[in-house]
Amino acid sequence: MKGLWLENQQLQLRTNIPTPEPSSGEALVKVLQAGICNTDLELIRGYYPYQGVIGHEFVGMVEQGPSHLLNQRVVGEINAACGNCRFCHQGVPTHCENRTVLGIVNRNGAFAEYLTLPIENLHRVPDNVSTDAATFTEPLAAALEIQQQVSIDANQRVLVVGDGKLGQLVAQTLALTGCDLLVIGRHRSKLANLEERGIKTGFSDTVTPRNFDVAVECTGNPAGFDLARTSLRSRGVLVLKSTYAGQLTLDASSLVVDEITVIGSRCGPFVPALELLAERKINVESLIDANYPLTDGLKAFEHAQQKGVLKVLLSLD
Amino acid sequence: MKGLWLENQQLQLRTNIPTPEPSSGEALVKVLQAGICNTDLELIRGYYPYQGVIGHEFVGMVEQGPSHLLNQRVVGEINAACGNCRFCHQGVPTHCENRTVLGIVNRNGAFAEYLTLPIENLHRVPDNVSTDAATFTEPLAAALEIQQQVSIDANQRVLVVGDGKLGQLVAQTLALTGCDLLVIGRHRSKLANLEERGIKTGFSDTVTPRNFDVAVECTGNPAGFDLARTSLRSRGVLVLKSTYAGQLTLDASSLVVDEITVIGSRCGPFVPALELLAERKINVESLIDANYPLTDGLKAFEHAQQKGVLKVLLSLD
Ligand SMILES: [Zn+2]
Ligand SMILES: [Zn+2]
Ligand SMILES: [Zn+2]
Ligand SMILES: [Zn+2]
Repeated sequence: MKGLWLENQQLQLRTNIPTPEPSSGEALVKVLQAGICNTDLELIRGYYPYQGVIGHEFVGMVEQGPSHLLNQRVVGEINAACGNCRFCHQGVPTHCENRTVLGIVNRNGAFAEYLTLPIENLHRVPDNVSTDAATFTEPLAAALEIQQQVSIDANQRVLVVGDGKLGQLVAQTLALTGCDLLVIGRHRSKLANLEERGIKTGFSDTVTPRNFDVAVECTGNPAGFDLARTSLRSRGVLVLKSTYAGQLTLDASSLVVDEITVIGSRCGPFVPALELLAERKINVESLIDANYPLTDGLKAFEHAQQKGVLKVLLSLD
Repeated sequence: MKGLWLENQQLQLRTNIPTPEPSSGEALVKVLQAGICNTDLELIRGYYPYQGVIGHEFVGMVEQGPSHLLNQRVVGEINAACGNCRFCHQGVPTHCENRTVLGIVNRNGAFAEYLTLPIENLHRVPDNVSTDAATFTEPLAAALEIQQQVSIDANQRVLVVGDGKLGQLVAQTLALTGCDLLVIGRHRSKLANLEERGIKTGFSDTVTPRNFDVAVECTGNPAGFDLARTSLRSRGVLVLKSTYAGQLTLDASSLVVDEITVIGSRCGPFVPALELLAERKINVESLIDANYPLTDGLKAFEHAQQKGVLKVLLSLD
């Protein structure tokens, strides 16, 4: 089959990748559409050791699997768990100690004609959710993870730092809580996108220091971290939603004096993400900047790496 | 009055410091005994801008104040709050936005014959608690702050990094929860102190990575931070109990991937600290390395700065 293969930090379009064969308990999924995420860009920059097909945001059609999913559109949770470790026993498969991760750790990913995943990872896409919208299920679920970790309500002042694709999803999910929300970005057009949806936005100089209860860092750069940190009141919560290139340097003493909580946040729940998409409570169409056929995948990656670009999709026909 | 005065990173014994006059709502306290803390050592190294009498761990006798406290031994919470800011209104005076802090921020401290504090900051020392023991109330309360922030029970594996005076108090308070506790230090004699009390100890090479639910960092050095971090399982909690000289560099991406919570922890509750001392559940006598008269205060500081030294006390007669 065709697919985008990463090896030695080289991304190649290959046509001779063996079509995966589902093991017991797995389904074979024909990929319909996939999305390029910052993690994919980090993988090809060599931040993580990985060789194989990349890609983990997708919508597909089940070709081999249980009858209730057969020929249905599905999205899939990306962590394939062992079922036996302490995290699996505690119902936290996203932290399984022996997990493989679609297109990230020891499991070929979604930028190919076919992928396999455990059946329990798959969720049927409701009929009234377009394939374009459903491609955002995985990052939307990641945005919702924040509310699994920190309770956020209408009485809280919340800052989102970053107007990229993740920041935009995070902002929209937080806005639904009724909290007093401000989103900081660097691009007038991206912020306008949020303003249209009634979300307050600004540049970094509009942040009053020591003013926010919760700050969500969605930039992955040290300046974004510093802005999020200084925005927080004593005992505030800083949610790290992005990974960082290399090490981060910070003033740990100030975390102690102000009793700040810093919490890392990764994959989230698919079911509420699909519900929000079905209820059209999250606008994802405005985040799509381009759509390429898989065979133009290298061009798609060039596009996705340009500054200011939001989501680039890959379509299979 | 006599006192240890800090100015331009110079600590001096002065004899002509004006005796403080309590404002309305404050008490005048004659200091009986005080303890030297790492924060004091950091102050004289210039980590924080401060000029005045230092010292914040003390036992004193109330000379002017309400009748129920007059001529009673007291200990005192170190944050003097404004009563009007949002933190004061929320009942969190330790984070008052306008606070002064005894011997640390804009308020003369305890290494002098007299100090003043708001009456509500003072707690009578139970008769069966010695003055030596009561001098540890403030750092013991700081140790107990951890359990205000993180619920710890018998099912958790907890690592304490650091066998210094703070680590020893933290370890003893955590041991009372029944958790599966391991304390890592560098000094056989200090660890023996904990072993005698039935607490498991070891050097850093005894820590199994990704094994602990909670790690408490009590060293204030980057190696201690790294050990605490790598000891944690996914979704573990890293409590920062020490301040750090300068900036700390860390792998923030791993916090995201493992969804680690890092939480700064500072001042804690005095009432349970005094209760534990009254019930003799915490051994503090073994932490006292020396006791100097205030007039030998500079010698006391030299002693306290030596490696491996635990608590050095200053006595007033
Ligand atoms: Zn992703
Ligand atoms: Zn597992
Ligand atoms: Zn102290
Ligand atoms: Zn206040």
